[in-house]
Amino acid sequence: MKQLITLDDLQDFDALIEEMVALKKQPFAHTALGRNKTLGVLFFNPSLRTRISTQKAAQNLGMHTIVMNFNNEGWALEFEDGVLMNGTTSEHIKEAAGVLSQYFDVLAVRAFASLEDKQKDRAEVVLRSFAKYASIPIINLESATAHPLQALADALTIKTFQKTARPKVVLSWAPHPKALPQAVANSFVRMMHRMDAEFVITHPEGYALDPEITKEATILYDQKQAFEGADFIYTKNWSSFEQYGQILRTDDIWKVSATKMKWTNNAYFMHCLPVRRNVVVDQDVLESPQALILEQANNRTFSAQAILKKFLDEA
Amino acid sequence: MKQLITLDDLQDFDALIEEMVALKKQPFAHTALGRNKTLGVLFFNPSLRTRISTQKAAQNLGMHTIVMNFNNEGWALEFEDGVLMNGTTSEHIKEAAGVLSQYFDVLAVRAFASLEDKQKDRAEVVLRSFAKYASIPIINLESATAHPLQALADALTIKTFQKTARPKVVLSWAPHPKALPQAVANSFVRMMHRMDAEFVITHPEGYALDPEITKEATILYDQKQAFEGADFIYTKNWSSFEQYGQILRTDDIWKVSATKMKWTNNAYFMHCLPVRRNVVVDQDVLESPQALILEQANNRTFSAQAILKKFLDEA
Amino acid sequence: MKQLITLDDLQDFDALIEEMVALKKQPFAHTALGRNKTLGVLFFNPSLRTRISTQKAAQNLGMHTIVMNFNNEGWALEFEDGVLMNGTTSEHIKEAAGVLSQYFDVLAVRAFASLEDKQKDRAEVVLRSFAKYASIPIINLESATAHPLQALADALTIKTFQKTARPKVVLSWAPHPKALPQAVANSFVRMMHRMDAEFVITHPEGYALDPEITKEATILYDQKQAFEGADFIYTKNWSSFEQYGQILRTDDIWKVSATKMKWTNNAYFMHCLPVRRNVVVDQDVLESPQALILEQANNRTFSAQAILKKFLDEA
Repeated sequence: MKQLITLDDLQDFDALIEEMVALKKQPFAHTALGRNKTLGVLFFNPSLRTRISTQKAAQNLGMHTIVMNFNNEGWALEFEDGVLMNGTTSEHIKEAAGVLSQYFDVLAVRAFASLEDKQKDRAEVVLRSFAKYASIPIINLESATAHPLQALADALTIKTFQKTARPKVVLSWAPHPKALPQAVANSFVRMMHRMDAEFVITHPEGYALDPEITKEATILYDQKQAFEGADFIYTKNWSSFEQYGQILRTDDIWKVSATKMKWTNNAYFMHCLPVRRNVVVDQDVLESPQALILEQANNRTFSAQAILKKFLDEA
Repeated sequence: MKQLITLDDLQDFDALIEEMVALKKQPFAHTALGRNKTLGVLFFNPSLRTRISTQKAAQNLGMHTIVMNFNNEGWALEFEDGVLMNGTTSEHIKEAAGVLSQYFDVLAVRAFASLEDKQKDRAEVVLRSFAKYASIPIINLESATAHPLQALADALTIKTFQKTARPKVVLSWAPHPKALPQAVANSFVRMMHRMDAEFVITHPEGYALDPEITKEATILYDQKQAFEGADFIYTKNWSSFEQYGQILRTDDIWKVSATKMKWTNNAYFMHCLPVRRNVVVDQDVLESPQALILEQANNRTFSAQAILKKFLDEA
Repeated sequence: MKQLITLDDLQDFDALIEEMVALKKQPFAHTALGRNKTLGVLFFNPSLRTRISTQKAAQNLGMHTIVMNFNNEGWALEFEDGVLMNGTTSEHIKEAAGVLSQYFDVLAVRAFASLEDKQKDRAEVVLRSFAKYASIPIINLESATAHPLQALADALTIKTFQKTARPKVVLSWAPHPKALPQAVANSFVRMMHRMDAEFVITHPEGYALDPEITKEATILYDQKQAFEGADFIYTKNWSSFEQYGQILRTDDIWKVSATKMKWTNNAYFMHCLPVRRNVVVDQDVLESPQALILEQANNRTFSAQAILKKFLDEA
């Protein structure tokens, strides 16, 4: 494996979940593996969980970590080939990726969707450019269309709490005052296709995700029907994919509430955080014993650690 | 001890001073104690001494440190309960504190006073919210009303240089072009109440500190009378507590000078830094052999290290 | 050696090159040397290669590193002596340098030229003030007029690739849309005076470097004549020294191209990066097998490591 940009890059999904379980039990069992190895972490966007859990994961493996906030600490990067660089960009990705490949053993990058140019976002220009021009493994810390480490953490969370061999899992669109990317939802869908589960996506009309990604999924416009019998409710906002990056509605009808949770089979509640209380979901749901949000965040350390370990093992 | 927000949280003051003395002699005597432990450091405000001395303290104990500048690296936090989060804040303190408690073993936070809302500042919303919702120890790196690690460093400085069992220590208000918090002064007063000393506060009328904190202190409006016979002069500006956050005067009458230092018993000069030269105090005083400002800054490492060690010992 | 501000501070140039060669072969041969030692790294300007390679160098020696971005994380510094600090600066360099000397074992500082005040830039106010008031070794990570670690990395690159005992090396001015400092060029010139080489500087009229630095160098205004027989072409923009900080021409006549490289003795191409493609040099030159730009960047780790090791050895 040379990169983890989407979950499609990952062949051995079940083995990786097993590795995550093992690392969570004994986080410090492999502190010699990362000796004298360095993880580079580049942020083009804000981060709390990802920033810290990724550093923790590297520490747990005995690796050094060097973090760069690219927007205010480094040089503006150019991603287009053949361009005359007489504008605002100072350094071409070819040089940047080549240079960083010499300093780091693994490179992790966060670069959100623009939500302005659908083709550019789908092309994953930043992540795929790093992967193309770097000679070291690249890890996606949330890109324009994917957030695989979140999905892997969510998979571990579901595995840990599922009571039946084939739980019903519902991904439910939620309201939000800002236009958000589809990355988390996309990776959750990709992940569910690798799990043994009855998987349903529910969202209002106009909020269909990329059909390339959801082609195997059951999609319902009726949230109540979707919630019935559910074992896990995963809620998340995303802006429209068809009317790219647009907010199509501002009502709170799709917010998750305690009343809606009663439609389910006493389902667990999941969200990747950060979550806007009482906008996306009522706070009594977030504070209920069924909420797994802290567990999900904690599992981020172990999804990052499992992927890092895989790259170190294969190096 | 679950937190160090003000010095009132600290029971065994004298034992802690002894610990600081020991750590200063042998900073690396406990490098195994922090193995595989991580200190999280959150900054909502700028920092030089605190940023570096806190990292040094953790390093000396063998701990990892992960620093976050919350204003430009993370998500805007909401501290109010029950609010509909459809505005500028993206993440609630309940989630943030819960999540960080899983990643870190100890959490240190800097969040200055607003100087706009006296009740909110006195309530120490940021620090107390972290303490309330986190499940790990919280260390105050200067909050709205307190700076206990500075006061502990100052206590070690006084202990080291005092020539008599009961020195006279004067806290003297100073001019400043900007409105500054009362945090350093408050903690210095609290600390002096734990030391065996003749303690006097001197400031112009209108600059009384929180009477809850100074109720045991001698307060003089006559700076010369206060300085007479003093062994230590600690100068610091603060804005008005009564007319909250206001600057009441812009003259330089209260500036400390070599002439005023001659009123004392050849006193040592102290300031927590950063200090505006020739505004707060004349530079010849800062550069005199009696100035302990570098010693105070150096002792910041050992106050942080003593508190961290205490939390690790009790974990 | 108490500081490395320009290469003139370095006595044993050849021994240092030997050390760099040795460290590049075995980067982790001295991990005990930096045990419980801390490198402080202060940035007043953006940085990619310098930021990361300096941290790598310290890691390789077993040192801790604490990085500060001074512009947004710390206090505004005052460098002038005797000033009444009632303006925008909060802390004097005397205090800052004194305090940092207690926390760190070595201090590395990046502070670019203003390009506005020639005398101030030539005086190297920031770097020389740190060196004056700090009690620990100071390393220049690019100052107003010098970038010695880049020049040392370049020296190692030339040593590694030279095919003859006395190669011809050409420093060729290049176009650039922004006014850039002369620091890299200055240090390259100083370095070439220590190497056994035929050294030529070529630039348009009006772009002469500081004559104090170039007094021993051959200077040609004819780029073609300069390139003839060259073994190494080092290209770099700088703004005018005479008309200080000005851009005197905006044409692309001095850009390096494949055609111009044919004038040479199959020369290697060098640039310190970041480089604006097709402005400074055509991208086919950058991507040719003769380009040493990644090697130069990689060698930055070892120039920093050699200097750090020297300071640790001498401590």
